[in-house]
Amino acid sequence: MLAQAGQKLGAKIYILSPNASDPAAVCSSFHTRGALSDSGKIQKWAEKLDVVTYESEFVDPKVLKLKQALPRPKIMGLMRDRKSQKETLSKYKIPMAPTMAIDQYVKPLVFKKRLFGYDGYGTRIVKSEKAFNEVIKELGEKSSEWIAEEFVPFKRELALSFARNKRGEICQFPLVETHQKEARCFWVKGPMENKKLSLLQKKIKGFLDSENYIGLITFELFETKSGELIVNEVAPRVHNSGHYSIEASSISQFEAHLLSICNVSLPKKSTPKSSFAMVNLLGRSNRKPSLFYSDKCSLHWYGKTENRTGRKMGHLTVLSRFPSQALEIGLSIERKQKI
Amino acid sequence: MLAQAGQKLGAKIYILSPNASDPAAVCSSFHTRGALSDSGKIQKWAEKLDVVTYESEFVDPKVLKLKQALPRPKIMGLMRDRKSQKETLSKYKIPMAPTMAIDQYVKPLVFKKRLFGYDGYGTRIVKSEKAFNEVIKELGEKSSEWIAEEFVPFKRELALSFARNKRGEICQFPLVETHQKEARCFWVKGPMENKKLSLLQKKIKGFLDSENYIGLITFELFETKSGELIVNEVAPRVHNSGHYSIEASSISQFEAHLLSICNVSLPKKSTPKSSFAMVNLLGRSNRKPSLFYSDKCSLHWYGKTENRTGRKMGHLTVLSRFPSQALEIGLSIERKQKI
Repeated sequence: MLAQAGQKLGAKIYILSPNASDPAAVCSSFHTRGALSDSGKIQKWAEKLDVVTYESEFVDPKVLKLKQALPRPKIMGLMRDRKSQKETLSKYKIPMAPTMAIDQYVKPLVFKKRLFGYDGYGTRIVKSEKAFNEVIKELGEKSSEWIAEEFVPFKRELALSFARNKRGEICQFPLVETHQKEARCFWVKGPMENKKLSLLQKKIKGFLDSENYIGLITFELFETKSGELIVNEVAPRVHNSGHYSIEASSISQFEAHLLSICNVSLPKKSTPKSSFAMVNLLGRSNRKPSLFYSDKCSLHWYGKTENRTGRKMGHLTVLSRFPSQALEIGLSIERKQKI
Repeated sequence: MLAQAGQKLGAKIYILSPNASDPAAVCSSFHTRGALSDSGKIQKWAEKLDVVTYESEFVDPKVLKLKQALPRPKIMGLMRDRKSQKETLSKYKIPMAPTMAIDQYVKPLVFKKRLFGYDGYGTRIVKSEKAFNEVIKELGEKSSEWIAEEFVPFKRELALSFARNKRGEICQFPLVETHQKEARCFWVKGPMENKKLSLLQKKIKGFLDSENYIGLITFELFETKSGELIVNEVAPRVHNSGHYSIEASSISQFEAHLLSICNVSLPKKSTPKSSFAMVNLLGRSNRKPSLFYSDKCSLHWYGKTENRTGRKMGHLTVLSRFPSQALEIGLSIERKQKI
């Protein structure tokens, strides 16, 4: 989606990825096969490129040591490690769940793997002393690769994105509600409201300015029962919770990211055209997937031939008068997909 | 745009085009260099493809003789030749300008080259006996490569597209007004109305059904001063007048074309989300082009590095409450592009 947004803006898009059949690889004739761990290959590949960006924080910032890489590898490195992420955000008084010591069980807590966690992988929710002891035993010497934080009972999950360019202009995306199914993002709807939103936005903008962050960044949030907003996790990249913006907002997260890293002027806001919902098409089987087309939504089918339970095979976006209405339409079309 | 629409629907898109830098070529890793006149190359390239389509009627239907080519080469051949196009449409009583004999000047007429005319190339408007004689002299022995028809004074130009799949379902696009600048499409706005529209739609659908046309087809129309609709030309393919549909309509011309040739069920109509305008970004100089981004429109920049007067460098689409308002916004952004 990032490659296609770039092509729509007339950019020549060069892709480096491990396999020729990767979703991004097939979208450009300028594809180079290479491992994201191969520093020499990346250096050589990037020699003639104006700007380099990435869609995953799984690439090591040391490997990505390129002067034209944006977001800068240093800040990506701080964000991809849950420990330094928490330390950095706390400097800006951005609310997060309190860190917990792991010498003994006091109250419900969450273990999070510092690196490479995603879609629920690398997360352990612990609500009893017995479970606590099991996790501690299991982690063993590797406990330094994990952090622990207080379990936050939440009313709903939300997400918030920002794009910032070199000249410091920030484009703010609407607050959206996200819903997970078996630890994977299932749907997103918006725009949503929260009375603490503008305070949080202010703090996040302060953080982005001070760190001179460049590119798109997404904050996954918990809304507590009393309406407080707590940052659960940060992703220094375009994010599944922002896919709706391709059709439903005045500027998409992909365009905003590209304009940011190319230092093009940004609008202050990505304004929703109406209420919207995005539903991920998650595999429900191993059968050959088959598309059900409906003009009531905008359908994105990722062209993956191998289907399996929980795999993101595509997504769809619906615009409607109310978020709940858009979601209802979206879910009814999702059910008709053979996945 | 067709390639990207296909990728969005999860199709593997294979491109055959003369140069690796062609706009479609850079959008897919499956590009094959080949001339559109090289029948052997096309046959070999197409061997493993499920469906083959084309964006231009410049390819000879004899060269394209593939069983999986849609629209079928035969009907494309009938449509690309202005003479057989007129003969075919007249069978279905679709109103066109009367054919004129060219033995002497009687009244204003238009000479049209039977093949390869586009953007005003291959069209001569003749309004005097002197001009008539000059054209006749110039055409000389090649006059059989041209047709002549009565000059139709028109109030405005319009366009109308349809997509039809194998099972005979037809998707109807809204009527749009088109405006040319120096014989090139400059802008399109819509949706528009005309009291003779439903009669014309009925006749065209009859034609599409009888000929078992499969794919998208566009009719360029004149609206006469008395409000009659006359078909000026037919393009058996996706068309510049339908670019608005990517953002402004419930199904884009590109998606509708792809669903048609893949025989997927089609909605009855492509419904506009609001009023809209599409403005082509035509080169105004030879200077290096530079993009002006605005989130008031959806910008498509084709990534052509060489700019020249009249060249289509991109287009933009605006949604607004009224077609005229959308057009005004679109033109104001067009003027800010360095082209």
